[in-house]
Amino acid sequence: MSFNTFGKMFRFTTWGESHGPAIGCVVDGCPPNIALSQKDIQIDMNRRRPGKSKFTSQRKESDKVEILSGVFQGKTTGTPISMIIYNTDARSRDYESIKDKFRPGHADYTYFKKYGIRDYRGGGRQSARETASRVAAGAIAKKVLQNKIGKKFKVIGAVIQLGLLGCNVKNWKDKEIQKNPFFCPDKSVIKLWEKYLLGVRKSGSSCGAMIEIRASGIPIGLGAPIYSKLDADIAAALMSINAVKGVNIGSGMYSALLSGLENSDEIRRKGKKTLFQSNNAGGILGGISSGQDIIASFAVKPTSSILLNRKTINKKGKNTEISVKGRHDPCVGIRAVPIGEAMMNCVLLDHYLMNKAQCK
Amino acid sequence: MSFNTFGKMFRFTTWGESHGPAIGCVVDGCPPNIALSQKDIQIDMNRRRPGKSKFTSQRKESDKVEILSGVFQGKTTGTPISMIIYNTDARSRDYESIKDKFRPGHADYTYFKKYGIRDYRGGGRQSARETASRVAAGAIAKKVLQNKIGKKFKVIGAVIQLGLLGCNVKNWKDKEIQKNPFFCPDKSVIKLWEKYLLGVRKSGSSCGAMIEIRASGIPIGLGAPIYSKLDADIAAALMSINAVKGVNIGSGMYSALLSGLENSDEIRRKGKKTLFQSNNAGGILGGISSGQDIIASFAVKPTSSILLNRKTINKKGKNTEISVKGRHDPCVGIRAVPIGEAMMNCVLLDHYLMNKAQCK
Amino acid sequence: MSFNTFGKMFRFTTWGESHGPAIGCVVDGCPPNIALSQKDIQIDMNRRRPGKSKFTSQRKESDKVEILSGVFQGKTTGTPISMIIYNTDARSRDYESIKDKFRPGHADYTYFKKYGIRDYRGGGRQSARETASRVAAGAIAKKVLQNKIGKKFKVIGAVIQLGLLGCNVKNWKDKEIQKNPFFCPDKSVIKLWEKYLLGVRKSGSSCGAMIEIRASGIPIGLGAPIYSKLDADIAAALMSINAVKGVNIGSGMYSALLSGLENSDEIRRKGKKTLFQSNNAGGILGGISSGQDIIASFAVKPTSSILLNRKTINKKGKNTEISVKGRHDPCVGIRAVPIGEAMMNCVLLDHYLMNKAQCK
Amino acid sequence: MSFNTFGKMFRFTTWGESHGPAIGCVVDGCPPNIALSQKDIQIDMNRRRPGKSKFTSQRKESDKVEILSGVFQGKTTGTPISMIIYNTDARSRDYESIKDKFRPGHADYTYFKKYGIRDYRGGGRQSARETASRVAAGAIAKKVLQNKIGKKFKVIGAVIQLGLLGCNVKNWKDKEIQKNPFFCPDKSVIKLWEKYLLGVRKSGSSCGAMIEIRASGIPIGLGAPIYSKLDADIAAALMSINAVKGVNIGSGMYSALLSGLENSDEIRRKGKKTLFQSNNAGGILGGISSGQDIIASFAVKPTSSILLNRKTINKKGKNTEISVKGRHDPCVGIRAVPIGEAMMNCVLLDHYLMNKAQCK
Repeated sequence: MSFNTFGKMFRFTTWGESHGPAIGCVVDGCPPNIALSQKDIQIDMNRRRPGKSKFTSQRKESDKVEILSGVFQGKTTGTPISMIIYNTDARSRDYESIKDKFRPGHADYTYFKKYGIRDYRGGGRQSARETASRVAAGAIAKKVLQNKIGKKFKVIGAVIQLGLLGCNVKNWKDKEIQKNPFFCPDKSVIKLWEKYLLGVRKSGSSCGAMIEIRASGIPIGLGAPIYSKLDADIAAALMSINAVKGVNIGSGMYSALLSGLENSDEIRRKGKKTLFQSNNAGGILGGISSGQDIIASFAVKPTSSILLNRKTINKKGKNTEISVKGRHDPCVGIRAVPIGEAMMNCVLLDHYLMNKAQCK
Repeated sequence: MSFNTFGKMFRFTTWGESHGPAIGCVVDGCPPNIALSQKDIQIDMNRRRPGKSKFTSQRKESDKVEILSGVFQGKTTGTPISMIIYNTDARSRDYESIKDKFRPGHADYTYFKKYGIRDYRGGGRQSARETASRVAAGAIAKKVLQNKIGKKFKVIGAVIQLGLLGCNVKNWKDKEIQKNPFFCPDKSVIKLWEKYLLGVRKSGSSCGAMIEIRASGIPIGLGAPIYSKLDADIAAALMSINAVKGVNIGSGMYSALLSGLENSDEIRRKGKKTLFQSNNAGGILGGISSGQDIIASFAVKPTSSILLNRKTINKKGKNTEISVKGRHDPCVGIRAVPIGEAMMNCVLLDHYLMNKAQCK
Repeated sequence: MSFNTFGKMFRFTTWGESHGPAIGCVVDGCPPNIALSQKDIQIDMNRRRPGKSKFTSQRKESDKVEILSGVFQGKTTGTPISMIIYNTDARSRDYESIKDKFRPGHADYTYFKKYGIRDYRGGGRQSARETASRVAAGAIAKKVLQNKIGKKFKVIGAVIQLGLLGCNVKNWKDKEIQKNPFFCPDKSVIKLWEKYLLGVRKSGSSCGAMIEIRASGIPIGLGAPIYSKLDADIAAALMSINAVKGVNIGSGMYSALLSGLENSDEIRRKGKKTLFQSNNAGGILGGISSGQDIIASFAVKPTSSILLNRKTINKKGKNTEISVKGRHDPCVGIRAVPIGEAMMNCVLLDHYLMNKAQCK
Repeated sequence: MSFNTFGKMFRFTTWGESHGPAIGCVVDGCPPNIALSQKDIQIDMNRRRPGKSKFTSQRKESDKVEILSGVFQGKTTGTPISMIIYNTDARSRDYESIKDKFRPGHADYTYFKKYGIRDYRGGGRQSARETASRVAAGAIAKKVLQNKIGKKFKVIGAVIQLGLLGCNVKNWKDKEIQKNPFFCPDKSVIKLWEKYLLGVRKSGSSCGAMIEIRASGIPIGLGAPIYSKLDADIAAALMSINAVKGVNIGSGMYSALLSGLENSDEIRRKGKKTLFQSNNAGGILGGISSGQDIIASFAVKPTSSILLNRKTINKKGKNTEISVKGRHDPCVGIRAVPIGEAMMNCVLLDHYLMNKAQCK
């Protein structure tokens, strides 16, 4: 990972600003001879794109991805796969009023102080629009993993906490997730969440969220000591998503409260299967996958662009106030689900390839 | 970060097993002409080493570090600094009984499955003994940052939750931390913690902990989009520490529960100073340091080696039980404080140098 | 350097196939606030592009580069600069006849054997067309170096050997180079070269070339021990150019023939200037720039696509023959001059930034 | 490759100064379960070490390597292999007289200017003593490749030009190389070389050399576009060796003089074998191994430390003269043979693993 490139063996580099002509992604190190079409990628792009419900930004981006290289006659060639997504509904006017003010909670201030220049339109490079590129990369990683591991491989994410409202994770149903606009896995809370989020939006404020990503069918042995631990790379991957402030693996922060007796997952053998009796470890021991489901969760802070007045300063260092217009998600965490899945897919493929190199 | 190497510009590579002849560390990319002595490093080594109180492992390691290269006439030369720490009190006998069994909660199973071979003595490479090398690297990073940034620079950590018991973070006193065996910053809870931990040990079990690391005096502008965000690198650094399962930046997981109004830190100007009105962001906006204190916390799971019986399997795949003898910390989280500080120092210096390269 | 990415701090990733819709390049780690326009890049693109004289391929590519990100209001922002160059004159028909045959001297055979699939049209990813992307990256590196170092900074290359014909390097005139279609620095040989190359082309064969790149105004101290030596990185950079088979630094291979007395460059001080009495070292000692001109040269093998019949095999492993139609340079080495300059610029900027990080 | 670390998947980091307590090497990413003993490494160490004949430095170093980690019960464990070699015959006195003078042809001047400090004793980090660490790493790489590829795998190097004297490469006999102190493959010239080198030494000067490295039994498909080409990595690897100024792959610089008809290696099929009719490509096409022998050669400049007087300046910038005492090789190129082999082994294994990751 360096600057705008993620990964070691399966690597992708993203580029582009929110209101520039386009954004995009170059995927490198992809295994050859994997069937790949534009459609394979578009499906996930559509899951992330804004404007699909009243609970997300009304910016209308088709997020149509074009493949420019690396695929020949429907198959990957092992050379870089370049993808481009044109920005079609950028309204830079919306941002004129804030070009000299730093929005609290955003990276306006730090970008300006670091670089001495910033593309303020729509947040420029800091915009969550960059995450569309990740979803494109993740879709390719998923395709490769499906090809290599087979049908048992699956990565799926869901929102498990919407602001102050949780859900019952034991009610998690994969199928339910795509049926509601919140990526919520628990049918029983959806009505409540809907009402709650409408209230949040009406108040002119916003709320945070917690997302859980589950990966199943993962081979034992992915990950490597000491600074390429699978969980360390997942943590970096998830923390690199805009607005993410915390990452848990398995029991996560909660494991601090457990006793040694409760926490360590006992192991049993049943026929030819190794079965863990619990999964506090989130499927990772010593940085290496154990064959259990990999469970990671992360917190997305509430959208910082809100209609309410906030104190801030301007470029000249004067005190001022700001309330952000434009089109914003009342809860950016919702659309983080396909992004979290994408990052998980990329980390898993990266480690799959590294493990293949060293150990298989 | 790749395998056993951490960092981009300031890089260190660690090596060694718990019961091998020695462990060590090679620091590369260190700026030249920085005063550095063995003592500078030993101070931090002593803070981490076991056997200092009844609340940590009774393994008696002097953890004396020797510098083998990269320092000439008391100053760094810009070439690799190699450090070695001999293992002097390894009792491999203790581990004979478990060489064919996988300890639950440890990486025994995953290492064996991944590599087909493992040095079972004291956990081999998976042992937390590796973290001594990190502390050595971190001590050098700290020295360099003190030289470059000056006296205002400070990184300090503390245990803020010991198993089920918290402390009042508002009572945090830096000086208090070194006065008690728990690295606890809040004097008022120490007696309680002591009693609690003795109870845990007596029960033959163990407990987890939460550690908070605070960095002050950090220049604005450290960190880089998108996959070298300062918080993403901190997350990876902390998650790479043995037994860590969760990482928070600022309000962390808790930020999911905040409203947009509560969460974004308002900005004010007072004279020549920019002052944030709160620090939910933990000093990082868009992956770049804002000049506020950087606050990160992490959870350490309870020690997996406990005296109580646990179900597991052996190398042949047979069901069996295990209770771990040997000398273990009732709470490994305690000694994680200097390790967390070391990782923070390394990440900060790494980004300090990268920012200098691109932007200064 | 990894797969399709070059550089450590100043990094670029290229993508695209000869007959795909476009090729391109993402430049990352570029310092902010550097004035940069499309024109700055186009100038160098035009020096490399084919179809300009009867001595280069007649493929007519305008090689118009578009900047898609990373530049705002005429200045770099420190975020990735994505550039795209559309392929406009690809004639894939020309390649139908060879899609199942491996052209000797080309990478057809090795790509097919490695990946099991290849885009045979125009050589796909193996095509020298990829080098257009390098020239775009190099133009940016040059702009930054001019900004940081000032007017004394200069990188210029020339063809010093065309097939069997050399030139007198002592006659080298920078201005002369752009006046002739051979990038020849010695006016006195141009007519001879012209006649010679027409003969080569007429014969249906091709010839090789040697190119020398000179960099002046380079600060002392660029480069780093041991595996980031400036000359090691220059060697990799030049050897990565298509058809390059040898690289010399300073006296290069010839230094094997010198005595110690002849070879080591004596040093003198004149006023405030350090003056070397010769430059066998090519401006690099111990992998670090000495302040002298950096001199590197490289050999480009003759174009492998020739009109004459060559023995080869096909995909099925049958013996066959091939003579390559299509539009080819009689000497690919000629157009390698701006490419060599570009790579030199990129390596120098990369090391400039790394030196700034560690030592300034 | 970064600073003192070489490689992508199979990585090694070297450290240590010529007259410090020790030098060493950490090998990371090594496949597990490969039989490895100290002896395996010592054999190659002995081939490189000085003091074995009157034609090399009289410094008497046993170069005994110790393995400190990463090997358990005679097999690699997949964790870092740390090796240490103590310096036993350093005579720093010899260097007192030159501590303030810059030896021409050495890196004294550039190290001092870059870092502002240098360990002048024996050249410190710039010393060719560092290459002992590479030989240790290369010995491990060789062991792994022998295990993975089998008996047909072989890397062997020889001196093919000693100063002004060449040899007949067609007389190359592998067995001959170890029988003479010059690593010369052609029996017929040894007497001549001996007489010549004695003359060189007697004159107080030194001479250069050319070394050729041949690798056979290499699978098709090693190497990767575009900036990880096998030949680009070999070029960097060889150019990173002290005193190397030029690198050729196959016909190398000479290929500039060939016609397209002569240069491209025709391909034939005979039974189940693909046979190239010549090997101008040096076994690499488009950066990828073709299955032919890989042939690389490099030039080592003459030893810069000579007994004769040379003009130079001192640390204060005053003109002065220097003649170097101490113990030096009349031709450092001779001992470069096992070093070149070591680097070739490391590059090949690195690419073997990368190819396994992406393509197998």
